[in-house]
Amino acid sequence: MAGPSFQALPGFRDFIPRECAIRNYLFETWRSVARRCGYVEYESPILEDTALYLKKSGGELSAQLFRFEDQGGRDVTLRPEVTASLARLVAEHQRQFPKPLKWFEIGQCFRYEKPQKGRGREFHQFNVDILGEAGPAADAELISLAIETMLAFGFVAGDFVVRVSDRHAWINFASRHGVPEADMPDFLNLVDKIEREKPQVLTQKLAAWSLTLDQVRAFIADPANASTAYTAIEQDLTARGFGDFIELDLSIVRGLAYYTGVVFEVFDSKKSMRAVAGGGRYDTLVATISDGAVDLPATGFAMGDYVIRNLIEETTHAAMQMEAWLQRQAANCDVFVIIADEARRAESLKLVTDLRRAGISADYPLNPAKVAKQFQSAEKSGARFALVVGAEYPALKLKILSSRTEESGDAANAIEWLTDRLTQPDGPLLA
Amino acid sequence: MAGPSFQALPGFRDFIPRECAIRNYLFETWRSVARRCGYVEYESPILEDTALYLKKSGGELSAQLFRFEDQGGRDVTLRPEVTASLARLVAEHQRQFPKPLKWFEIGQCFRYEKPQKGRGREFHQFNVDILGEAGPAADAELISLAIETMLAFGFVAGDFVVRVSDRHAWINFASRHGVPEADMPDFLNLVDKIEREKPQVLTQKLAAWSLTLDQVRAFIADPANASTAYTAIEQDLTARGFGDFIELDLSIVRGLAYYTGVVFEVFDSKKSMRAVAGGGRYDTLVATISDGAVDLPATGFAMGDYVIRNLIEETTHAAMQMEAWLQRQAANCDVFVIIADEARRAESLKLVTDLRRAGISADYPLNPAKVAKQFQSAEKSGARFALVVGAEYPALKLKILSSRTEESGDAANAIEWLTDRLTQPDGPLLA
Repeated sequence: MAGPSFQALPGFRDFIPRECAIRNYLFETWRSVARRCGYVEYESPILEDTALYLKKSGGELSAQLFRFEDQGGRDVTLRPEVTASLARLVAEHQRQFPKPLKWFEIGQCFRYEKPQKGRGREFHQFNVDILGEAGPAADAELISLAIETMLAFGFVAGDFVVRVSDRHAWINFASRHGVPEADMPDFLNLVDKIEREKPQVLTQKLAAWSLTLDQVRAFIADPANASTAYTAIEQDLTARGFGDFIELDLSIVRGLAYYTGVVFEVFDSKKSMRAVAGGGRYDTLVATISDGAVDLPATGFAMGDYVIRNLIEETTHAAMQMEAWLQRQAANCDVFVIIADEARRAESLKLVTDLRRAGISADYPLNPAKVAKQFQSAEKSGARFALVVGAEYPALKLKILSSRTEESGDAANAIEWLTDRLTQPDGPLLA
Repeated sequence: MAGPSFQALPGFRDFIPRECAIRNYLFETWRSVARRCGYVEYESPILEDTALYLKKSGGELSAQLFRFEDQGGRDVTLRPEVTASLARLVAEHQRQFPKPLKWFEIGQCFRYEKPQKGRGREFHQFNVDILGEAGPAADAELISLAIETMLAFGFVAGDFVVRVSDRHAWINFASRHGVPEADMPDFLNLVDKIEREKPQVLTQKLAAWSLTLDQVRAFIADPANASTAYTAIEQDLTARGFGDFIELDLSIVRGLAYYTGVVFEVFDSKKSMRAVAGGGRYDTLVATISDGAVDLPATGFAMGDYVIRNLIEETTHAAMQMEAWLQRQAANCDVFVIIADEARRAESLKLVTDLRRAGISADYPLNPAKVAKQFQSAEKSGARFALVVGAEYPALKLKILSSRTEESGDAANAIEWLTDRLTQPDGPLLA
């Protein structure tokens, strides 16, 4: 047999039911953590004017864009990230909302990269931002949400660490050492590469500013170089009981040009030290995007679905928590109605309808079939109970599929009966 | 002040918090109805090979596509609908799943149309399909879900009606009157336009097949022309108590070429008789998309977010139900912690963290502020309670913001105290 003629595009995923359930687990966890920390949900458009992204990133992402001309001749782009849209949206609507804004979005982004394990051409991102507050209290509140999110997925101390830095520390360093302000982007880029670039290359580049690699490394190594913002954040998070989850790491500056101050990354501390999430302060972006019409300081972070899912699956306690959630979602229904007597199909359909109306997930065989075959369908559906409608209707039998035990009841009070059974563990039924 | 320099593209929506909450109301209602009727969720990619859509629709939608060449030279399209993707996905993965498949998807689709009230260039669609079952029992089960969905939104008898038809009735009619099989698409297209096209035009076109407009109208008007499938569906839905929600309407054939049998539309019966949802049987699509590799009969329907939202907002009882849901979601948090004594900020942060960990949505002022100002922030947040941390800590005060009454408690048992209060109505607190 020939294979199917169409396939998903490279780097795009088919979310068949189990994959979709995993996606929903990530989404529901993100959403519930954000809501209990006082953030409200928004969503920006998936397609935007390309100029919005070029203006924000200064072209950093432009090689990776899904960019095209629409039927109206507009230069448009599938969003590679959402912060540019957020800045646009906030500039337009912010007057309606008291400050600070604590907003989150769960949405899909698109980047034309080489697909590989842990990276596709589309991915889902959890974006969390606080706008309208310039002080480190906002950064601490934001970082605490990153920590809460990891805890909600079942990670514990030792699984991850948040490495916090501050571009201001480097701006001070550079100004003390006479690095011209215009060179700051290049200088920060160099710091960003300090763990990955060859020492000779770094040494050569630093020489242009009369700096040595040792000077830079010594600056990174000395905790006394923490900025005042870092110190405030550390105190705040320690008060919350999160002191063990953060550490100063001045080697972090984050690549994107638009960051202005505190930056941080959540690291997997067991395995490859991957960044699971990252973010920081971008106090000038809203003004840039709005041509100065609105000026709002801001701090935010993003977490992608690929890396967090991989980390969950590699971490036994987090994986078990997810698996337990998936198990609860895996059943197509709670109650499978078995039509043992076709003459009772009409009554069975009414019963299914009544159960559903009462909020009980119920299914049934679309076609007449032998009772044994219907029980097979009930098993495959993942239902907890099979409710048998036979010639003795309105008398009904309820089979507990896990234990193959049964009890008797009546159609007239089926809703109360099933509701009661579904809120109890299977155990008591055996008595 | 100049306006913001960037705006959303025409026909694309910014989901600021209230709009996003309405979107979530639609999504959650769709999801919960589908799940309790035994459907499982999947999601197909937003971007697909353009040929997939051209093959499915025979070009019907091609003028409206967001279609472009990606960086790898592929001809790709933002999905205008999801059924083509579903057929592709099912052809590839169906062997893993027992039949019938009862699957649903909630996703965004894109069509380049003229934006107007009730229509944008993007919209969200609830897609529900049953695959692997050819008989009318599947169509009845599917239509019952359309009805359940309307009921879940708070609509009642008289608000809407499902008009059901069957292309087989027209195929019989055409064969009796000698309309060549090759002309069936044109003939069905004409029937589709019978309410909208000028009678002269219809008469002229029908003359080519030696038919009159009166013959066609008489066929539509006679309930004896219902197909056997329609009769079975009517019996099934009547057994469920849904007999009043459906009616035969042979004038419905639905525009898309790929429908093969039973077709239906959910109509708003109060206002403009808009179609709120529509669908039908497409028994040959999976085989077409998979070049014959997989042959699965199928039936499905889609409901868009624009029309259902408008109908909800125009229908008082449905609008009130939505508004009540939005009210419950509108608060940024349940408990706003007021830091009446800045010396207690550390303890307050710990308290906020503990509340959140216990699943209680909590917020607090990022910066020191006068107590009166903090109470204003608490009011604006929509919180039900303000929890006051002052010099007398660990003694705390709880203010019920709606009634301005208060009670005293202790930090040591704050979780139990707040959990208890949040599960009670405000009333008993006043006693």
